[in-house]
Amino acid sequence: TQKYSNEIYKTANMPGVAVGLAWTYVGGDILFIESILSEGKGELKLTGNLGNVMKESASTAFSYLQANAKKYGIDPTIFSKKNIHIHVPEGAVPKDGPSAGVTMLSSLASAFTGRKIKPYLAMTGEITLRGQVLPVGGIKEKVLAAKRAGLREILMCYLNEKDVKEIDSNFIKGITFHYVKNMQQVLDIALV
Amino acid sequence: TQKYSNEIYKTANMPGVAVGLAWTYVGGDILFIESILSEGKGELKLTGNLGNVMKESASTAFSYLQANAKKYGIDPTIFSKKNIHIHVPEGAVPKDGPSAGVTMLSSLASAFTGRKIKPYLAMTGEITLRGQVLPVGGIKEKVLAAKRAGLREILMCYLNEKDVKEIDSNFIKGITFHYVKNMQQVLDIALV
Amino acid sequence: TQKYSNEIYKTANMPGVAVGLAWTYVGGDILFIESILSEGKGELKLTGNLGNVMKESASTAFSYLQANAKKYGIDPTIFSKKNIHIHVPEGAVPKDGPSAGVTMLSSLASAFTGRKIKPYLAMTGEITLRGQVLPVGGIKEKVLAAKRAGLREILMCYLNEKDVKEIDSNFIKGITFHYVKNMQQVLDIALV
Amino acid sequence: TQKYSNEIYKTANMPGVAVGLAWTYVGGDILFIESILSEGKGELKLTGNLGNVMKESASTAFSYLQANAKKYGIDPTIFSKKNIHIHVPEGAVPKDGPSAGVTMLSSLASAFTGRKIKPYLAMTGEITLRGQVLPVGGIKEKVLAAKRAGLREILMCYLNEKDVKEIDSNFIKGITFHYVKNMQQVLDIALV
Amino acid sequence: TQKYSNEIYKTANMPGVAVGLAWTYVGGDILFIESILSEGKGELKLTGNLGNVMKESASTAFSYLQANAKKYGIDPTIFSKKNIHIHVPEGAVPKDGPSAGVTMLSSLASAFTGRKIKPYLAMTGEITLRGQVLPVGGIKEKVLAAKRAGLREILMCYLNEKDVKEIDSNFIKGITFHYVKNMQQVLDIALV
Amino acid sequence: TQKYSNEIYKTANMPGVAVGLAWTYVGGDILFIESILSEGKGELKLTGNLGNVMKESASTAFSYLQANAKKYGIDPTIFSKKNIHIHVPEGAVPKDGPSAGVTMLSSLASAFTGRKIKPYLAMTGEITLRGQVLPVGGIKEKVLAAKRAGLREILMCYLNEKDVKEIDSNFIKGITFHYVKNMQQVLDIALV
Ligand SMILES: [Ca+2]
Ligand SMILES: [Ca+2]
Ligand SMILES: [Ca+2]
Ligand SMILES: [Ca+2]
Ligand SMILES: [Ca+2]
Ligand SMILES: [Ca+2]
Ligand SMILES: [Ca+2]
Ligand SMILES: [Ca+2]
Ligand SMILES: [Ca+2]
Ligand SMILES: [Ca+2]
Ligand SMILES: [Ca+2]
Ligand SMILES: [Ca+2]
Repeated sequence: TQKYSNEIYKTANMPGVAVGLAWTYVGGDILFIESILSEGKGELKLTGNLGNVMKESASTAFSYLQANAKKYGIDPTIFSKKNIHIHVPEGAVPKDGPSAGVTMLSSLASAFTGRKIKPYLAMTGEITLRGQVLPVGGIKEKVLAAKRAGLREILMCYLNEKDVKEIDSNFIKGITFHYVKNMQQVLDIALV
Repeated sequence: TQKYSNEIYKTANMPGVAVGLAWTYVGGDILFIESILSEGKGELKLTGNLGNVMKESASTAFSYLQANAKKYGIDPTIFSKKNIHIHVPEGAVPKDGPSAGVTMLSSLASAFTGRKIKPYLAMTGEITLRGQVLPVGGIKEKVLAAKRAGLREILMCYLNEKDVKEIDSNFIKGITFHYVKNMQQVLDIALV
Repeated sequence: TQKYSNEIYKTANMPGVAVGLAWTYVGGDILFIESILSEGKGELKLTGNLGNVMKESASTAFSYLQANAKKYGIDPTIFSKKNIHIHVPEGAVPKDGPSAGVTMLSSLASAFTGRKIKPYLAMTGEITLRGQVLPVGGIKEKVLAAKRAGLREILMCYLNEKDVKEIDSNFIKGITFHYVKNMQQVLDIALV
Repeated sequence: TQKYSNEIYKTANMPGVAVGLAWTYVGGDILFIESILSEGKGELKLTGNLGNVMKESASTAFSYLQANAKKYGIDPTIFSKKNIHIHVPEGAVPKDGPSAGVTMLSSLASAFTGRKIKPYLAMTGEITLRGQVLPVGGIKEKVLAAKRAGLREILMCYLNEKDVKEIDSNFIKGITFHYVKNMQQVLDIALV
Repeated sequence: TQKYSNEIYKTANMPGVAVGLAWTYVGGDILFIESILSEGKGELKLTGNLGNVMKESASTAFSYLQANAKKYGIDPTIFSKKNIHIHVPEGAVPKDGPSAGVTMLSSLASAFTGRKIKPYLAMTGEITLRGQVLPVGGIKEKVLAAKRAGLREILMCYLNEKDVKEIDSNFIKGITFHYVKNMQQVLDIALV
Repeated sequence: TQKYSNEIYKTANMPGVAVGLAWTYVGGDILFIESILSEGKGELKLTGNLGNVMKESASTAFSYLQANAKKYGIDPTIFSKKNIHIHVPEGAVPKDGPSAGVTMLSSLASAFTGRKIKPYLAMTGEITLRGQVLPVGGIKEKVLAAKRAGLREILMCYLNEKDVKEIDSNFIKGITFHYVKNMQQVLDIALV
């Protein structure tokens, strides 16, 4: 993770960019997810060496947002006029799994609303099509990675709270945790 | 199955969400199936790490519903104006087989009619294109999983009744069973 | 085959459903083929865990019917206004080979004309694009399976008659055999 | 080859059907190629368990015919109004190689012109896009298969004449051979 | 190479046909490349058992020609009104590599301009999208194959001149060599 | 790398051509990237034996440029009127990885603006969708290859500066280095 300095989080502070947490065989890591709109017909393009489960996660986030557009102040007709591209940097590293779901949703919602993501916020969690947030694994490693990278708030499923309780409190001093049940709570916290 | 508490069934109580029963190598499990409509041209999107047989099952349910739309009070022209997305949560777990057919049909019918699925109802069974429900395997494990998860009614093919009879009656006290022959019976029971 | 009782053949008695005979490593079996039309643009959807040869068989039946629509009283413009879905139940069982050709043709012709298939009739045979019926293997096993399942008439290529002659006549008492050369003969017998 | 009796050649006597010669590991064999037109937009569908080289052969024949439509009395606009389906019966048998090129061309030309192929004529040879006929292998086995099947005339590349000269003349008594250099010669002989 | 006699080069003398040189494990060989136009929408079809690198070579030639249409007297709107088919005969032989680039370009340019390729001219060389010709391997084997086949002129990259200098001059007596840097020089020489 | 002489850089001096640096198992190498526009509908074609990560890199560059068109003086409607082809010469050599991102972006921006790339400039670096430049590996080998090939300026991520500092200064005498953080800086330097 030495590729990113704190300075990165400032430059990241533009709509469409969210910070996720990944669990790799060398421990936890942070993961940027970038979404960008362009003129088009509603196509969803995914890059960044993503596996099928992670691609399905993005597709689920996209369908949820489209079906709940009005609730989040998004003009529903925009989905037939724009293409959306989601990219996860560091293309040399294969990435997979459902745990980036909340991050992908936040990135998409940020891009479509034009509202930025709260700075220094990281998140992890699977999402379902009806708007639930499900618990994921590797919480300890992810939280420590977020701490090392200088992040200040972490959002996850309320069913993962027990995993945070098991971490030595000295290691996570200064981190604020958000435990959520559904996507509306995610976006209430994530979108500035 | 500890991921879902009883509380989940209440939040699940929205159109498009149905509860199925799956048979895995670690025993029976419950399975949510979520369907959601969005503006489009009749495309069917499937996510949730589904194998080909399960995808074909969804396609069969979709064709049945489209061909029998009027019978269920669905405007037939809606199929060319909406896209439908079916998602089965827990994307990290591969899922396959034909036994989620009735659950997929119920989820789709619920999404297209706007009528909710009966709460605390689980179901399992293969469907055919002409509207029959076929028997499936793993009934004992599935029934016990439904019981453990707090479900109260279970729907299956009438040819599976013999498999229920073989379960110790103490284990299934309080569960109501529905034995059906065809999809019309499924939807009569499932849609509130 | 215990999944199907005689009752099944009555409920099967709707346009688009035909009964074929399959040859599996555990012996002969019966096979339902279901076709259903919906609004569309002439797409052919195939489900039921079908191998490539069986899919090509369906495609050949479809092209034959489209090219010979008038001969069978079908409005040729219907092919650009409807989608057709062919499903072969029991999705867990892989199926392949060309011998379901006549059954697929009959199922399609029944769906497009709205005329039902003769009840208690089973059939097996490869079809060609110009309308011939070719002989297939496994006749003995297929005939015995049809008998066990309560079917009363069996249709096949005239070049398979010699295979029927080799079966002990006690085993096939009460079965009527139809030996055909081409698809017109198939449909003359199959469509009520 | 016992599947086909002489009677077959009479019923084959309809536009779009041509007889080719194949070389298999059990010796030579005859091969029917069937082409049929239907309403459409110029799509070419290929079935019959064909390998990629054989599919490319069909595509080459199709492009040649389309580019040379006027020369053969075919209305060039027909290619945007019809779909064409080429099928090679006996779907259980995989088929490949370029040597069916002349047969595919003849089948297509017959279907598009409505002129029948000369009865009792078999052919073998690769074709090129500019209209040449190239020599192929397995001539002895193919010629003997044609003789056994009751065919009376065989067409091939003039560079294969040497291979026919090596066959014992007693074996090919009564067969007329046509040696050609290009497709125009093929169609002059094949189309009645 | 005994398949082609000198006579072939005369019949090859029609627009769209170019002669390339290939390097195979049995030595050098000549290679015909055929291009043909038909009514369509700018699709590029490739046949002849070509590998991916050779297909990309054709695509590069096509894009170059389209972008430089005016320079070569080609109406740029033709690319949206015609389909183009490139075929490399002898479908049984797999072919690959970038060295047919100049030959593919010449074949395409000949087809689009209606100008023939210079007779008895062979060529080899990779092309780039901006119009450069790059050197290729196997020059000695390719030149000897061209000589054996009766070809009289050979075109290649100027950086391959050193490879020709290493061939015994007795072997290449009577052959004229053209060394080029870019595609414009190729087409100046190749198109009559 | 002996394929390219200095002369090449002059002929390369046309819009759409950029010079990258690659790291191969035989050391560093230079890499040309060529982009060309033609009439079309916004399709992106990629050739040159590129792996999936490199293709995704091109797609990311394309989306970035499309979303930031106005910033770089590009008419945004051009993306729906032109097709773009990116080719990386030497088709026989497989290429992959994210490090050609900045070079692909520069090539595309040059093609779309009509402005040439600065001559004798090489570059390497991964890009992100939001416009960051990320560090890459193999800096020493790449820089030495650029030097050998006669290049005079090298652009890379500012986080790679430490890798340049480790190279013996005698080896890189006369080379100017540009360290950048984002794509705007890349294009400010690269586009003449
Ligand atoms: Ca990292
Ligand atoms: Ca995450
Ligand atoms: Ca579970
Ligand atoms: Ca189920
Ligand atoms: Ca069965
Ligand atoms: Ca059958
Ligand atoms: Ca045969
Ligand atoms: Ca043949
Ligand atoms: Ca050859
Ligand atoms: Ca060549
Ligand atoms: Ca090189
Ligand atoms: Ca580079």
